[in-house]
Amino acid sequence: MSIKKVTHIDNVKLREDGQAVVILDQSKLPGLAEYIELENREQMYDAIAKLRVRGAPAIGICAAYCMYVLAAREDSCGDFMKKLREEGEYLKSSRPTAVNLAWAVDRMIDKAESMSDEADEKVLDALRNEAVAIHEEDMAMCRRISEFGLSVIKEGDGILTHCNAGPLATSRYGTALGPILLAKEQGISLRVFADETRPLLQGARLTAYELDAAGVDVTLICDNMVSSVMQKGWIQACFVGCDRVAANGDTANKIGTSGVAILAKHYGIPFYVLGPTSTIDLDCRTGADIPIELRDPEEIKKMFFCEPSSPESVKCYNPAFDVTDHRLITGIITEKGIAYPPFEESLKNMK
Amino acid sequence: MSIKKVTHIDNVKLREDGQAVVILDQSKLPGLAEYIELENREQMYDAIAKLRVRGAPAIGICAAYCMYVLAAREDSCGDFMKKLREEGEYLKSSRPTAVNLAWAVDRMIDKAESMSDEADEKVLDALRNEAVAIHEEDMAMCRRISEFGLSVIKEGDGILTHCNAGPLATSRYGTALGPILLAKEQGISLRVFADETRPLLQGARLTAYELDAAGVDVTLICDNMVSSVMQKGWIQACFVGCDRVAANGDTANKIGTSGVAILAKHYGIPFYVLGPTSTIDLDCRTGADIPIELRDPEEIKKMFFCEPSSPESVKCYNPAFDVTDHRLITGIITEKGIAYPPFEESLKNMK
Repeated sequence: MSIKKVTHIDNVKLREDGQAVVILDQSKLPGLAEYIELENREQMYDAIAKLRVRGAPAIGICAAYCMYVLAAREDSCGDFMKKLREEGEYLKSSRPTAVNLAWAVDRMIDKAESMSDEADEKVLDALRNEAVAIHEEDMAMCRRISEFGLSVIKEGDGILTHCNAGPLATSRYGTALGPILLAKEQGISLRVFADETRPLLQGARLTAYELDAAGVDVTLICDNMVSSVMQKGWIQACFVGCDRVAANGDTANKIGTSGVAILAKHYGIPFYVLGPTSTIDLDCRTGADIPIELRDPEEIKKMFFCEPSSPESVKCYNPAFDVTDHRLITGIITEKGIAYPPFEESLKNMK
Repeated sequence: MSIKKVTHIDNVKLREDGQAVVILDQSKLPGLAEYIELENREQMYDAIAKLRVRGAPAIGICAAYCMYVLAAREDSCGDFMKKLREEGEYLKSSRPTAVNLAWAVDRMIDKAESMSDEADEKVLDALRNEAVAIHEEDMAMCRRISEFGLSVIKEGDGILTHCNAGPLATSRYGTALGPILLAKEQGISLRVFADETRPLLQGARLTAYELDAAGVDVTLICDNMVSSVMQKGWIQACFVGCDRVAANGDTANKIGTSGVAILAKHYGIPFYVLGPTSTIDLDCRTGADIPIELRDPEEIKKMFFCEPSSPESVKCYNPAFDVTDHRLITGIITEKGIAYPPFEESLKNMK
C-alpha cells in the first residue's frame, strides 16, 4: 500500500461552482488521501453516516455547506421552506447523536426562514454566507485556542498528545494540535510524540498523518511507551482534547487520557486540556456524572488485525472514554483564555 | 479463523518412545494450538530459531530434551562425545543470545563427559534424567514463586498483569501468572485483567489465551485502559515478570511495565514483580545501568495489521523494555521468598 502525502489538509469545502461539497474521505486515511464530491443528498447522508467526514465541528461545517448546495437545487416555484426542512431532517438522521450536525442544519434553516420575504437569489447568497460563517467561526475559535496553547510552550519543547483533536476533526488548526500547527507556521520547532491510541488508532492513523503532512517533527509511540519517553525527559507538556468538562474541571476524553495525566503528574510535566467553551458542562457537577460509552470488544480483538489477537472466548472491556481527575490538570485552554485551578471558579467565568 | 481451546498447556515434552521432542508451536498461537514433533537436529534448530518455542526457561528445557534425543541417535561405535559437542554447538547457534539455551546444552554435555567410562545405556539414562531434572527444577521454582505470590492475594481479588510470564514461557505455572494458576487449582476465584501489550500483543495472544485455556476469569484490555479499571476499584494487585532486577530493586521488564507501576502507586494498589533469583543482577547497581533494546518501527506500524497504521514517513520509537523505579515496587517475589524494601539489603540476602 502506498500512502499519499498531502501538504495541506482541507477537509471540507464548497466546490468552486457551488454545486457540490468536497471532502477528504477520512475513512480511507492514512492509506489514501482521496477527495470526494457530494452532489446530492444521498451522497451527503452516506458521507456523514459512514464517517467519511468525522469530528463534531467538521460534521457541522459539512452539513452547513450541504444545506446550501441542496437549497440552490430547489425549484424556486415550489414550497422552498418545506423542502429545505425535509432535506435538513434527512441529513440530521445520518448521525442522530452528533449535536453539531443538528445545530448547523437548524442554523441554516433559521437563516432561510428569517428571509422568507426576500428574492430567491438573496436567500441563497445569505445561506452561502451562513455556511461560510459557520466554517470561519470554527477556524477563528481553533485559532484562538491555538494561540493560548502556544503561550504555555516554547521552542524546542517536546509535546505529547493522545488520540486526535486536529484539523481533520475540526477546521484548520484543530484544538489539541492547534498550538503545534501554529508553532510550525511561526517557525517554532517542537518535537511531538503521538500515542497510537488503541483500539481505534486515531493517533497513528490521523494525528501522526496530519502532523507529518504539515511537516511537524512527529514520532509515533504505542500507548504503553508514554512513561518511557517522559522518563527520558523528552516531554515538556501534554496537550489533549476533551469531550466533556464538568463544573469542577474533571474531563472526559478518549480512553487513556487519565493514564497520561497520572504519568505527567508523576514526572512533573504540565498537562493541558484544549477545547471550546461549548464542551464545558456546568450542569455536570463532577466526572462521576459523565456517562462512559462501552464499545464492541471486536474493536480490540479483530479490527485492523489480519487475524484475531485473542481467542473468541476471551472477554474484553472496551470503554471509549475515561475521566481525568481535575487535580491532574494544569490548565484548560479555551477560545476565551486558559482556566486554572480552582476550576469551579475559573470555568464559571468562561461561560 | 477458528481458535482451538486447549485445557492444559504442555509446551515441551519428550515423546513416549524417547525419539522426539514434542512442542506446542507458539508461533501459531492463538490462532492454532498445534503440537509439532522435533525428530532431527534441523527441526530442532528451526523450532528455536523461528520462536516456535520461546521464553528463556522453555528454550532451555527444550534444548535439554533435544540433546538427549540426539545422543540416543548417535552411533555408539564412533566418537560419541565429539559428535555430541557438535550437535550442541549447532543447537546453540539457533539463538546465540538466549542464555538458558547455552546453559542447558552445556549442562547436558557436562553430564555425558562426567560418565565417559560408563556403558552407553547408562550414559543415555543419565542424560534423560538430567533433561527431566532441568524441567522439574524449573517447575519447582515456578511452583515456589506461585506459592509466595498467592500469599499476598485473596479470594475475589482483581489482578492486573502485563505482557506474558506464564507457562508457555517457562514450565507449568510460570512466574507472574503462577499465583493465578495455583489459585485456580485451589479453587480460589480471582478476576484477571490482561493488558494486550503493544506492539507484540503478548498479553492478548499468550496471556489471555493461557488463562482462558486454564478456565481463569480473564478480561482483555488495551494498555491505555489500565487507569480506567484501577479507577473503578477492580484491581487489588499487579503481577508482572522481570527481565533483569538491579541491586537497588529497579526492574527492567516489557515496555509499559513502569507505567502500570506509576498508575498502581497513584491508586494505592500493591505492585509485585515475580521472577527467579537468577534475574537479580547484583553487579548492576541501578536501572540506569540496564541497556534497553530498541526494536524495528515496523512492529508498531505494520506487524499484525492488514494495512500500515500510519504513513511510511512517520518515525516510531519502539523500546522493548522499560525500567520501573524500585520506589514503585511493593515486593519482589522469588523462589526463595519475597524481597521487600529496602531492596539493597533484601535482594543481597536472596542470592
